Amino acid sequence: MNNLKRDCAALLARLREEAPLVHNITNYVTVNDVANAVLAIGGSPIMADDGEEAADIASVSAALVLNTGTLNARTVDSMVRAGRAANSRDIPVALDPVGAGASRLRSETVSLLLKEVRVSVLRGNLSELSFAAGLGGAAKGVDAGDGDGDPAAVAREAALRHGCVAAVTGKVDAVSDGKRLARIENGHPMLSRVTGTGCMTTALVGAFLGAGGSPFTAAAAGVICMGIAGELAYERAGHFGTGSFHMALLDALSTLTPELLEERGKLYEASC
Amino acid sequence: MNNLKRDCAALLARLREEAPLVHNITNYVTVNDVANAVLAIGGSPIMADDGEEAADIASVSAALVLNTGTLNARTVDSMVRAGRAANSRDIPVALDPVGAGASRLRSETVSLLLKEVRVSVLRGNLSELSFAAGLGGAAKGVDAGDGDGDPAAVAREAALRHGCVAAVTGKVDAVSDGKRLARIENGHPMLSRVTGTGCMTTALVGAFLGAGGSPFTAAAAGVICMGIAGELAYERAGHFGTGSFHMALLDALSTLTPELLEERGKLYEASC
Amino acid sequence: MNNLKRDCAALLARLREEAPLVHNITNYVTVNDVANAVLAIGGSPIMADDGEEAADIASVSAALVLNTGTLNARTVDSMVRAGRAANSRDIPVALDPVGAGASRLRSETVSLLLKEVRVSVLRGNLSELSFAAGLGGAAKGVDAGDGDGDPAAVAREAALRHGCVAAVTGKVDAVSDGKRLARIENGHPMLSRVTGTGCMTTALVGAFLGAGGSPFTAAAAGVICMGIAGELAYERAGHFGTGSFHMALLDALSTLTPELLEERGKLYEASC
Repeated sequence: MNNLKRDCAALLARLREEAPLVHNITNYVTVNDVANAVLAIGGSPIMADDGEEAADIASVSAALVLNTGTLNARTVDSMVRAGRAANSRDIPVALDPVGAGASRLRSETVSLLLKEVRVSVLRGNLSELSFAAGLGGAAKGVDAGDGDGDPAAVAREAALRHGCVAAVTGKVDAVSDGKRLARIENGHPMLSRVTGTGCMTTALVGAFLGAGGSPFTAAAAGVICMGIAGELAYERAGHFGTGSFHMALLDALSTLTPELLEERGKLYEASC
Repeated sequence: MNNLKRDCAALLARLREEAPLVHNITNYVTVNDVANAVLAIGGSPIMADDGEEAADIASVSAALVLNTGTLNARTVDSMVRAGRAANSRDIPVALDPVGAGASRLRSETVSLLLKEVRVSVLRGNLSELSFAAGLGGAAKGVDAGDGDGDPAAVAREAALRHGCVAAVTGKVDAVSDGKRLARIENGHPMLSRVTGTGCMTTALVGAFLGAGGSPFTAAAAGVICMGIAGELAYERAGHFGTGSFHMALLDALSTLTPELLEERGKLYEASC
Repeated sequence: MNNLKRDCAALLARLREEAPLVHNITNYVTVNDVANAVLAIGGSPIMADDGEEAADIASVSAALVLNTGTLNARTVDSMVRAGRAANSRDIPVALDPVGAGASRLRSETVSLLLKEVRVSVLRGNLSELSFAAGLGGAAKGVDAGDGDGDPAAVAREAALRHGCVAAVTGKVDAVSDGKRLARIENGHPMLSRVTGTGCMTTALVGAFLGAGGSPFTAAAAGVICMGIAGELAYERAGHFGTGSFHMALLDALSTLTPELLEERGKLYEASC
């Protein structure tokens, strides 16, 4: 029996019915893909990063996604304000600490957000989550970050440290709440050759949170959907190159069904 | 006889010849698609949103397009400055009030822009235009907004209130100048599953204004081109998913001819 | 013998092995394509434009790319800080003076950057490089700019004036260091119908600089790769329209090999 996978599939069905509003304060590099990924999986995205409206929008959304991909003083403040507004109404928050460890601004901002905002799910690559877990970690760029270390151990440590669910994605994906561990073996290396696949994964997690999923299920669902979509995209279009793969990835997200998730998902649960 | 449709087709031919410069102050979510849509339909896009240059650029452009998709204090000021510069030289302005009604900042900004800038065409979804018409309207996200209400009545009311042409797009599209009404029945539901199709429509209207079209003809032409492109994209690529549909939409805009517009356009004119 | 073309091919092989980190401070219109183009050619992109981190990131990167496509006061300052940090560590800088000559802000910023930052390669269209060369030049939009003038003469003049390599791209491409001249005859007119192909070209040059290429070889390599990719994209997908061409362009960059570069490259060297 694989109850978590079944829960993910059921959550996908619910997401497509409810079309929850997902508020994103994200970077300008991958924002179009993030919005289209949320739409493809069944959510309704809204991007709003001005301090004047960030809290307003967060308050009426079903979930908030924060992403540190291209920070500046203005948006850091908006993230804190939106995060607090979400917390005060028990609206779940997903955080993508893009580039944590790569510059002082990013590292300090991620630390600030983890201190000021109660985060339901933290999703990043191995070096970003190692930083968040207090285990060091130095990013090279923002699309790489595989490096050394055991994804499961890093996810567990980050989860325990911040009292949240942590998801490390890369060659192997690991989702942990500090006690349970889900290992996901879907995905394809070409996912690292298109920018924004990590950002999109976190936004998918946000959409699943917005559909009422528990943090653990939402994190697993977001990660497994991107993994399966990566495989489908590669099978259909990978031979053409990264442009076609990118397009096919959004196709796959938009046509993914709960049945296909159950059929193709490679999700293994354990205690950590 | 369908003179308006013929006028739209003639305006498309003229746009492709003249390649007018279209200045956009728009959001960072869909800006790439907006620029590519303007290029695809035959215009020459320029994006410039700093207060120091917004008025300079607006003054040398053939049309100005303002879009409130991701506002901040800096860009609101630039929009006002660019709008006034355009007005002082009789350069037409199209406004896309993205998210009007969804937050105080957006609502106030749209009201400010409609007060400070003389707008030729106002294009939005039903809830945005209901807000602009003073009929209430609460957006859920920025890609939905169909809701209740009669598009034709809302377009008429918004047009009368602001002395402009108003275009409501959604399941049914309605364009009104307060007296005349054009109903456009092209389009496909998949257009609402890709972000930016509304923003692109307003930018197309801007390009048609830049080619010398009257506000009524330019609005109808922009709306009908996006509707036909949506149908063509769905026919060719909709079965793959939203990524392929998105790409095929730009293909369709770039290959659309005046003849095809006349052949496929479903445009019905009436008095309102 | 065509040593420069062979050098370009060898540099492409080296780039794919080394995956240098390329820091971009660029515009929000084409930033996603820029990041994906850098990934496609084999580099590792990072986008960071806040003044607090721009110098940090530039210091750990293999190359810095500055692009004036959508300026504001905040990013102009970041460009200067990042440029100086790069210069102080002999990290090469590529500059794309988008829209130089089209507004006072852009013209002054380009002049400021050329004064404050030692640039290895300057890449733009004919009107932008004419401006940089002190020969006047007035842009119409940012995707056109072919206009009058001899690309080779303009490239030579800009190179001599700024002590760098200058690359003019358009109907004909010319790369000059003031003494040597490379004429590149690859490319396709459809490249001017998608926004960002110029920005991507400059980012490719940045990636080749980051892989240790000399400014002259890196400039030629970036220009020739985009030209060949444009031809391949047109052959495969041009008949569909600009959306498919855009996608196929990234496909072509991601699958381009040193062998194909040697086979298809039309590169002619001379003294100027």
